[in-house]
Amino acid sequence: MHSSLDCFPCFARQALDAARIVSDQPEMHEQILRRICLLASEMDLNQSPVVMGQAIHRMVKEVSGNPDPYRAIKSRFNQLALDLYPKVKRLVDQAPDPFDAAVRLAITGNSIDFGAYTSRDFNEASLHRMIDTVLLEPVSGDIAIFKQAVNRGGNILYLADNAGEIIFDRLLIERLPLDRLTVAVRGIPIINDATMEDARLAGITDLCTVIDNGSDAPGTLLDDCNKSFLGVFNQADLVIAKGQGNYETLSDVDNKAVFFLLKAKCPVIAAHLGCPVGRMIVMTGAHQS
Amino acid sequence: MHSSLDCFPCFARQALDAARIVSDQPEMHEQILRRICLLASEMDLNQSPVVMGQAIHRMVKEVSGNPDPYRAIKSRFNQLALDLYPKVKRLVDQAPDPFDAAVRLAITGNSIDFGAYTSRDFNEASLHRMIDTVLLEPVSGDIAIFKQAVNRGGNILYLADNAGEIIFDRLLIERLPLDRLTVAVRGIPIINDATMEDARLAGITDLCTVIDNGSDAPGTLLDDCNKSFLGVFNQADLVIAKGQGNYETLSDVDNKAVFFLLKAKCPVIAAHLGCPVGRMIVMTGAHQS
Repeated sequence: MHSSLDCFPCFARQALDAARIVSDQPEMHEQILRRICLLASEMDLNQSPVVMGQAIHRMVKEVSGNPDPYRAIKSRFNQLALDLYPKVKRLVDQAPDPFDAAVRLAITGNSIDFGAYTSRDFNEASLHRMIDTVLLEPVSGDIAIFKQAVNRGGNILYLADNAGEIIFDRLLIERLPLDRLTVAVRGIPIINDATMEDARLAGITDLCTVIDNGSDAPGTLLDDCNKSFLGVFNQADLVIAKGQGNYETLSDVDNKAVFFLLKAKCPVIAAHLGCPVGRMIVMTGAHQS
Repeated sequence: MHSSLDCFPCFARQALDAARIVSDQPEMHEQILRRICLLASEMDLNQSPVVMGQAIHRMVKEVSGNPDPYRAIKSRFNQLALDLYPKVKRLVDQAPDPFDAAVRLAITGNSIDFGAYTSRDFNEASLHRMIDTVLLEPVSGDIAIFKQAVNRGGNILYLADNAGEIIFDRLLIERLPLDRLTVAVRGIPIINDATMEDARLAGITDLCTVIDNGSDAPGTLLDDCNKSFLGVFNQADLVIAKGQGNYETLSDVDNKAVFFLLKAKCPVIAAHLGCPVGRMIVMTGAHQS
């Protein structure tokens, strides 16, 4: 997916949010924001918005000297998700269609996204509200078709997205064929994206193979991933890609069945998907499986 | 008032909105947006946000070759305000305190601002809703103190803000001492700001002296105004400054009584004023009269 001109105000907003998370020095905020504006003035619109996201958050880490600025936010939402886990697991187990419920809860976890949202837009209370209505909300796409793709056999690669969210992913991962499943996380901390540490905390390393992709992109830029990840990706018969960043980077993959599970949190993504903002999505990309 | 880092995402948003109003060519939108990002990367934060607003809208006019891109929007909201005029005039005349009601309606007109708002955020229906509740809404500041300042005597200069809004201004202007009142409009079309043509349409040229300030800034940058305007400004004992742009450019004036009448439409202005977004404001600036 290419970048849109509508992404530009959001790049500036993201840069400022991230700068303020990493530092309370206005001079540092200003330096980061000015450098991102300069980058935006020359950016290649054929690139995915994730490339600019990567540049923004690399710059935040470089200017601040903090290699993991969202560590505290990741811990906070991991803890919140762990606290909620017994409740949401019960919700899934007792649902008329537990697989459908697990997909919905995994997508609800995708709201824990501090690239798309700021802490003004999203907090613990919003997550509680979403869980209360998750089984009734509309979903764009067909969870039954997704389930058929899972049951078709072959290797499955699950691309996790954010910390906190990855604990909700566990609800779905537990219902996937674990012997032919690999879960992948980011290789290097970026925004609040899940890394190996978060997969371990979620208990997913005890369930199936977990690998890291070697990259610090808040999505899956294949050119930026390590060889072992690419080997698994190329061998996968089905890719389950969580979240906006993975959608932005893989929506054009046309030689492989990719199912995107996400909340459409921004107007650009929603327009690309042809759905309203806030909608839960279970859809394939360029490849129609 | 200085520019805030929080203005940067809004500069990009404004540039894109304006580019799309003036043209349906994506290449032109992109060119304008890239050039504004470059300007933002080097802008002097000690300047008022109006300086960047002026740069954005000058660039939109230059790139498009259209000297008045908001002409259709101005006509639409002038016509809407003219249609509403009998109703709002009755509302003022029948109010328990007509002066108070006229101030409130003049401020309500300040919502017709296509710098602060996009046509997604503001339309005819929003204006109707605001009028219905205007007499009950809270106002930050004291309209009675403003009235005392008006009645104190001396020369009054009324700085109009937007087309459409200027027809609501007429309700207040009719209740000001017309023999010692001058109304000023922008010298050159910029966004949907009122020019002499709009003052004439509102019938204000029939009521009192109307001058233009010679400038194309969406506010009052004194260094950018013509000599005749500066003469009237310097001779004024009271300045009534409508709207965010006039607040952004004159809030630091400390040698003259300036009353600011506006809707606080953006978070930066609201924080500067210490009020919630959307609040009606009747306040003095650096000079406490």
